[in-house]
Amino acid sequence: MTKPIIFLQRPFRAEFIAKIQTMAPAYQIRTTLTPEEVPFVEISVDWSKEYGTALLQSNQLKWVQASTAGVDYLPLGAFSERKILLSNSSGLHALSISEHIIGVLLGYYRGLNESLKNQTQKKWNKHLSHYDQLAGKNLLVVGTGQIGQQLSKSIQGLGVNVYGINTTGHPVTGFIETYSIKNLAKIVSEMDVIVGILPGTPDTYHIFNSDIFEKMKDSAVFINVGRGDTLHTKELISALEKKQLAFAALDVFEEEPLGNESPLWEMENVVITPHISGLTVDFQNKFMKIFLTNLKSYLENNELTINQVALDRGY
Amino acid sequence: MTKPIIFLQRPFRAEFIAKIQTMAPAYQIRTTLTPEEVPFVEISVDWSKEYGTALLQSNQLKWVQASTAGVDYLPLGAFSERKILLSNSSGLHALSISEHIIGVLLGYYRGLNESLKNQTQKKWNKHLSHYDQLAGKNLLVVGTGQIGQQLSKSIQGLGVNVYGINTTGHPVTGFIETYSIKNLAKIVSEMDVIVGILPGTPDTYHIFNSDIFEKMKDSAVFINVGRGDTLHTKELISALEKKQLAFAALDVFEEEPLGNESPLWEMENVVITPHISGLTVDFQNKFMKIFLTNLKSYLENNELTINQVALDRGY
Repeated sequence: MTKPIIFLQRPFRAEFIAKIQTMAPAYQIRTTLTPEEVPFVEISVDWSKEYGTALLQSNQLKWVQASTAGVDYLPLGAFSERKILLSNSSGLHALSISEHIIGVLLGYYRGLNESLKNQTQKKWNKHLSHYDQLAGKNLLVVGTGQIGQQLSKSIQGLGVNVYGINTTGHPVTGFIETYSIKNLAKIVSEMDVIVGILPGTPDTYHIFNSDIFEKMKDSAVFINVGRGDTLHTKELISALEKKQLAFAALDVFEEEPLGNESPLWEMENVVITPHISGLTVDFQNKFMKIFLTNLKSYLENNELTINQVALDRGY
Repeated sequence: MTKPIIFLQRPFRAEFIAKIQTMAPAYQIRTTLTPEEVPFVEISVDWSKEYGTALLQSNQLKWVQASTAGVDYLPLGAFSERKILLSNSSGLHALSISEHIIGVLLGYYRGLNESLKNQTQKKWNKHLSHYDQLAGKNLLVVGTGQIGQQLSKSIQGLGVNVYGINTTGHPVTGFIETYSIKNLAKIVSEMDVIVGILPGTPDTYHIFNSDIFEKMKDSAVFINVGRGDTLHTKELISALEKKQLAFAALDVFEEEPLGNESPLWEMENVVITPHISGLTVDFQNKFMKIFLTNLKSYLENNELTINQVALDRGY
């Protein structure tokens, strides 16, 4: 009888492969698959576009461990129907994303972006068109999950006042106050920085739109590191043109890569990064901490200890 | 008899002028001077190139309050000879400079500088030539004065391990360990980031030179926000070319503005900012806190309460 397969979509270091094999001697470990092997995959690390349909058709697939935090690109409905467990890698990218956000803010406030542009022209220009101080600013984290909590922890030492928004407005450690997502439009007017860290769900689609932008301070900064389609891109562009807010830094987009024709590329008050905020050194180590913890409990009692996704909720 | 003059080299807001006048009714306040008035100046806020010689020739000048932290551009010898008191504005720029340093570090570590360059070419490139994590890094502050202490306070929340160097190696709150400046060459090899915040004195001239660079990690980052001539610029360029360190961010230079012919402008692993790290919002408020505190004690007993410069030491 063919052994069940643990399928790893990316090459992991030998030490990790060995560890998995030791923990799960009854399984074969594959980093590539032949079509014949697909029906034997029981555990899949990340999702294969190539074999996705076949994997769903087999009755063998029981658990998918994603290496991403957001999982809206996965067939959640089909997983739910077939009772396939899903876990994400929320938390793994939290420190990286939080450093990215702070870097982007200081690059803008301290005139570093402008100086970098001047450097390419050998231009010594002390008279910045804009500079400001991060300390003392009010920052609103929209999405108080692991990334938001890490950001709050990191940025408080810089003298920033951190507020939060989540589904119900339930309090979360590290936030001065938290508000329900229903109150987003009411609260943004008091904020200097608004950071979107929302998962992609029907409820969050285009949640950052003209209704929100027109209520922002004209000095406000908007940063999106959540899902691209939580932002109504056209309405942001229009709001920036109308100077309803001062600056936006986007790491995620409704379509990626961002098309050449997008006006965002050339806007003076926009910084574009190509979905890199979550890049993290020592990824394999951090990921394996999550995966091996879940593997242990899965083998013991078919349960996932950490980061299980509620398939109906989508995160 | 002509009243003694308090000479302000820059226009301050009316509220501050009024406050000074209330505190010092026996004085006239001037923001411009006629040559006839020069001999009556007793207190000078900042230093006038135009009237400097004449001010030193009069016997009336008793106190100069600088709005800068470094004071090596002032005639310290002449001040000392004539027993003119000098106070600086150390601390005023500390928060700004500390935000600048953190911004510069994250811009490099998180691939933001590279992405900004790519943006100008509408280039979507996730494969950064370099990215890293700030958390966990060892940072050496060379100069544990007010700026260094603020940096230590701000950056610790980002998970950075902060070490310090000062004249004698005396311990300073906020630093894991402090070393004597004599041991700079010994200690740099253990550091990921080296930040120069030294005043310009004969002892610190060209203290960052090839002897130091060749001992750095090849992944090391060097930042200078102290005096420009604490750095041997040519030897830094050579060290960067030899990849003895990975990256440098310079806000101060041996000659300012930095000349067009400097190779620094075009170096991939160098960020140049035009002496802007200390730019601070609400400058007048912050400066007046220092000046008015000293004005009070000066009027009471001819003493300065804060930020008095030891003229023999130069800071």
